[in-house]
Amino acid sequence: MRVQVVIIGSGPSGLLLGQLLGKAGIDTVILDRSSRAHILSRVRAGVLEEGTVHLADAAGVGARLKAEGLPHDGFSLAFDGRDHRIDLLDLTQGKRVMVYGQTELTRDLIEAREAESRLMIYEATNVMPQGFDSGTPHVTYEKDGVTHRIDCDFIAGCDGFHGASRKAVPDDAIRTFEKVYPFGWLGILAEVPPVDHELIYANHPRGFALCSMRSLTRSRYYIQCALDEQIEAWSDDRFWDELRRRLPAHHAEAMVTGPSFEKSIAPLRSFVAEPMRFGRLFLVGDAAHIVPPTGAKGLNLAASDVHYLASGLIEHYEDRSNAGIDGYSHKALARVWKAVRFSWWMTSMLHRFPGTGAFDQKIQEAELDYLTHSRAAETVLAENYVGLPY
Amino acid sequence: MRVQVVIIGSGPSGLLLGQLLGKAGIDTVILDRSSRAHILSRVRAGVLEEGTVHLADAAGVGARLKAEGLPHDGFSLAFDGRDHRIDLLDLTQGKRVMVYGQTELTRDLIEAREAESRLMIYEATNVMPQGFDSGTPHVTYEKDGVTHRIDCDFIAGCDGFHGASRKAVPDDAIRTFEKVYPFGWLGILAEVPPVDHELIYANHPRGFALCSMRSLTRSRYYIQCALDEQIEAWSDDRFWDELRRRLPAHHAEAMVTGPSFEKSIAPLRSFVAEPMRFGRLFLVGDAAHIVPPTGAKGLNLAASDVHYLASGLIEHYEDRSNAGIDGYSHKALARVWKAVRFSWWMTSMLHRFPGTGAFDQKIQEAELDYLTHSRAAETVLAENYVGLPY
Repeated sequence: MRVQVVIIGSGPSGLLLGQLLGKAGIDTVILDRSSRAHILSRVRAGVLEEGTVHLADAAGVGARLKAEGLPHDGFSLAFDGRDHRIDLLDLTQGKRVMVYGQTELTRDLIEAREAESRLMIYEATNVMPQGFDSGTPHVTYEKDGVTHRIDCDFIAGCDGFHGASRKAVPDDAIRTFEKVYPFGWLGILAEVPPVDHELIYANHPRGFALCSMRSLTRSRYYIQCALDEQIEAWSDDRFWDELRRRLPAHHAEAMVTGPSFEKSIAPLRSFVAEPMRFGRLFLVGDAAHIVPPTGAKGLNLAASDVHYLASGLIEHYEDRSNAGIDGYSHKALARVWKAVRFSWWMTSMLHRFPGTGAFDQKIQEAELDYLTHSRAAETVLAENYVGLPY
Repeated sequence: MRVQVVIIGSGPSGLLLGQLLGKAGIDTVILDRSSRAHILSRVRAGVLEEGTVHLADAAGVGARLKAEGLPHDGFSLAFDGRDHRIDLLDLTQGKRVMVYGQTELTRDLIEAREAESRLMIYEATNVMPQGFDSGTPHVTYEKDGVTHRIDCDFIAGCDGFHGASRKAVPDDAIRTFEKVYPFGWLGILAEVPPVDHELIYANHPRGFALCSMRSLTRSRYYIQCALDEQIEAWSDDRFWDELRRRLPAHHAEAMVTGPSFEKSIAPLRSFVAEPMRFGRLFLVGDAAHIVPPTGAKGLNLAASDVHYLASGLIEHYEDRSNAGIDGYSHKALARVWKAVRFSWWMTSMLHRFPGTGAFDQKIQEAELDYLTHSRAAETVLAENYVGLPY
C-alpha cells in the first residue's frame, strides 16, 4: 500500500491532521494500536482555545462542538478564602475558551473520517516509522499476526508520549528536556452539576484543587495529591470532603456531590523533545511534548502543531514549496516553549510544593496578590490561557 | 533630651523621614554611628521611581535632583545577541525613572537638614532603641565615651540590615524570610561616558551584566560573578573584557573604557522581617527588608516605607488618629512583598544559576522570548520597574 502521509496515532492530533489533509486532497492512513471502542472511551482534557475550535471547524467537525460546547468567558482563582475572577473576554478583547470533552471531539473526528471513508487501521501493533531519513519512508505494523508495510511521502508521529514515533529517532539526533513535579492530580468525574458555571483554580494550604466540568450536568474535579497516593484509599466521601476543604466557604457549601464514575491519579510532568522533525518524520503533540494539566494546554498545543504541519504539507503538495515543512520544528517549538513555560508557571503558582521554604511560599502568595491587583498581570494570565496566536 | 521621634540611621530613608516630619512640625533627631564624611562617600543605588522623586520633592530636595538627574524613558534587555527595548513611558502611560546617585540624594538631604538646623548626631555608638513596648520609649547611645539618653514618642529604625533596631526586637516577636542567591555582582565606577543613554540588562551564557550610569560622564557597570570571587583577581582590563563578552556586539564595540575608581563585590540576597512595627518602634527600609539590586528596588522601597510611616505619624500628631501607624506594617509589607517578588523574578530571569538544569534554562529563555513578544508581559515588567502605586 502507498499513501501520501501515514499518521501514527488516532488521538485528536492525528485525527485533526487527517481531516485537514483530507480536505486538501492529500490521502492519509491512520494507524492506532488501540481498538475503536477504547479510543472512544478515553477521558482527557476538555478546555479548548479558540484556535483549536477554528481548527476543528476547518476539519469539518465544528457543528456539534459549537452546539454543545460551553463557551467560558472567564474563570476564578480561589485563594486565601476568596475568589478572584479572571475576565478572559474583557482582558483579551473578546477571546474565550470552549469547554468540550476531548472524548467528544475524538468521536466527532472519527465519525467524520468514517463518513468520508478514509482509511483507519485499529489494533495495529508494533507500528514502526522507518526510512524517514532516506528516500523510502514507510511504516510497518502487525495486524492479526501479519506484518504490513505502507509506503509514503511523510510520516506524522501523533502517537503520544509513549508512542513508537519519538522512540524511532536515534538518541543522538534528539534532545529532551524534562521536569517531574513532586505531586499528582487525583481526579473524578461525577454526574453532578458543576459547583460554578466557570472553572475554579484553587490554591489552598492543603494543596491545589480544580473544579472543572464536561457539561452542565457532569463535573470534573481534581485535588493535588502525593505521588505515592493510593487510589483505593480515596472513597468518594473522602474526596468530596477534601475538595470542599480547599475551596472558599461559599463554594464548599454550594457543592453538589454524588457517586464518581471515574477516578484516577495522574502525575504531572513537563517534557519537550527537540527538534520535532527528522527527515520525513514529524512529531506532533504529546509525542514531542507534555505539559502539566494546569491551564489545559496539552490538547491545544497538539492542535497548533497540527496547524503548522498541515499548512506545511499542503504547501508542499499544492505549491511545491518545502518552506512550511522546513520551518515546522522551529515554529512549533517557539509556541511549545511558551506554553510549557505558562503551564509550569501556573502549576508553580497554584500548587503547594512539598519542602518549600517560607520565603518561596511568601513569593507565591505575593504573586497571587500582585496578579489579582494588576490588569497587566491578569492580561498575561488571560492571553496565555485563551492561547497565544499561532 | 526629649524629641517626638528618634530616627536611627542617616541613610536616605532616615533623612527623608526626618525632612517630611520636620515639614509637618514634628521634631526629630537623627543618630548615626558613622561620620558625616563616611555617610557622604557611600556609593549605592541610583535609579529612582517617580514616587521616590515626589517624596524628595515633598522633603524639599527636589531641585537639584530634577536639574541634574537623568530621566530614563526605557531600558534594554540584551540576550541572544540582540537588544530589546522596554519603553517605560509608552507601557506605563507616561511614567519614567530618574537616574540620580543615592550619594547625591543623601548629600541633598543632609544639607537641607543642616540648613534647617535640625539635630543630627554622627559617630553615635551603641545606639539602642529601648522601652518601645512600654510607655517610656527612648534611645540610648554613646558618644565620646559618654552614654546619652533621648526620650521620645516613637523610634524609627532606619539603620539598615546590620543595624541595631531590628536586633533590639525579641526573636519571638519577629519572623524572617530569606533567600541567598548563588552569585554576586562585581561592580565598578569609571569616569567614562555610558555605553548607551539607557540602562542595559544583559543575560548571557557567561552570566548577567548591567550597564548603568551615574551621569553622562560616569558609568556604573556590573557583572555577575561567583560568590567566592576575589576582587584582587579582577584588573580593570579583565573586567572590561568580561563585560564586553556579555553584551551584543554593537554595544561591546561602542564601549568606552578607562580606569575604575571604585570596584567591589556584593552578594545578592532577599530578606524580609515581619512585622515592621513593634509598639513604638518602626522598622524602615533595609532594616526590615533587602532585595537583590536587579531592578533597583532597594532605595525605592525604603522611600515607600517612609511615605507610609510619615503619613501615619503626621496623622497621629495632627489628627490624633492612630489609624496610619496601626496600618503601617500591613500597608508597607504588602508593597514590600510585591517588590521582593519582582526583584526575585527579574534576578531569576536575567542571571545564570550555577547547576541549573537544561529544562530550567529553556524556561528562562522562553520567558525572555515571551516577554519580548507580549505587550502585556512588557507592561508587567514596566509597571513594576517604574514602581507600583503607593
